[in-house]
Amino acid sequence: MEFSSKLLENAVYEMSQLPGIGKRTALRLVLHLLKQPKEQSVRLSNAIQVLRSDIKFCTSCHNISDVALCEICGNNKRDKSLVCVVEDIRDVMAIENTGQYRGLYHVLGGKISPMEGIGPQDLTIGSLVEKAKNGEIKELIFALSSTMEGDTTNFYIYKQLEGMNIKTSTIARGIAVGDELEYADEITLGRSIMNRIPFENSIKAL
Amino acid sequence: MEFSSKLLENAVYEMSQLPGIGKRTALRLVLHLLKQPKEQSVRLSNAIQVLRSDIKFCTSCHNISDVALCEICGNNKRDKSLVCVVEDIRDVMAIENTGQYRGLYHVLGGKISPMEGIGPQDLTIGSLVEKAKNGEIKELIFALSSTMEGDTTNFYIYKQLEGMNIKTSTIARGIAVGDELEYADEITLGRSIMNRIPFENSIKAL
Repeated sequence: MEFSSKLLENAVYEMSQLPGIGKRTALRLVLHLLKQPKEQSVRLSNAIQVLRSDIKFCTSCHNISDVALCEICGNNKRDKSLVCVVEDIRDVMAIENTGQYRGLYHVLGGKISPMEGIGPQDLTIGSLVEKAKNGEIKELIFALSSTMEGDTTNFYIYKQLEGMNIKTSTIARGIAVGDELEYADEITLGRSIMNRIPFENSIKAL
Repeated sequence: MEFSSKLLENAVYEMSQLPGIGKRTALRLVLHLLKQPKEQSVRLSNAIQVLRSDIKFCTSCHNISDVALCEICGNNKRDKSLVCVVEDIRDVMAIENTGQYRGLYHVLGGKISPMEGIGPQDLTIGSLVEKAKNGEIKELIFALSSTMEGDTTNFYIYKQLEGMNIKTSTIARGIAVGDELEYADEITLGRSIMNRIPFENSIKAL
């Protein structure tokens, strides 16, 4: 792509560094900004800069937070002995949206992935083990995605907690509510049969 | 969506103001920036801000340019009597990429669209008519998209130039090179038969 302006080329280049945004999309976004009032660009630019310089993470669960202890960790009505281990803040938001969970979270910041050069020390596993050692945790729920990396991470943490008398569980894998059996993949379907639940329990959930 | 941080919420909101970027994508982009070195966010933020404050438009063709007269308008090897009217800078880039065109451009900045409240006075039509009046233009090529708005804009400009002895043309509409006839829409196919060209000319183009 040949640009008639270095400023434009630079803005398009930086925009195209974002994931899933190619050069063409980046150009479309930048030209859109140019057509809008100048204030919009200034607001976007400032929001990115302020976020990056002022962002804080909860000292306990590592969720993004504007204060030292996030709203969830600081909420006395929540069960502090129950901790759900998730990959990133989006998972926290997704689980919070269900309105079904009253425990705390622990945000790992990723999964162990030798392929991408991410080891246990790059995640917040140390701080999780610390909390466990202090006896704050009774049950740990693994809610990582069901991939090789997710399973590896679960297992790594599980080994670290050995002998601490902490109950561990993973979220249930199965056929999504509303889904047709015939379109389910065989691994999920197989697991959902293996891990079947008493019918009475499924009625209670309704 | 419930956010655990106002800074995050604000950055996601501003990002989601871009076209084609919803709240979820915006969150993904912002979290990506947080995972990258701080410099990347600073560069993106600065690039947007500098672009918006320092951007210039060519005084002649209204293309984006870092200098008063853009590279194309200032190029003495190009045919200044031939002007191609386009909607925005992306069209200039697309036509330049073909390497087939040696005239100048005129960037309108949009199309006349009563539905979106865009009238002739919102575009650079005045400056085009001015150039025409000065006798600088011998031929005008309309290269707007083939929509109601594009046709309206073409016709509006055409009427403004009446009596000025300027040749006008539109780019050819037809079956794309490499396309199968059976998949072509009927309007395009119809036009391509109506506007057929001598076989000798089509050989020359090879």
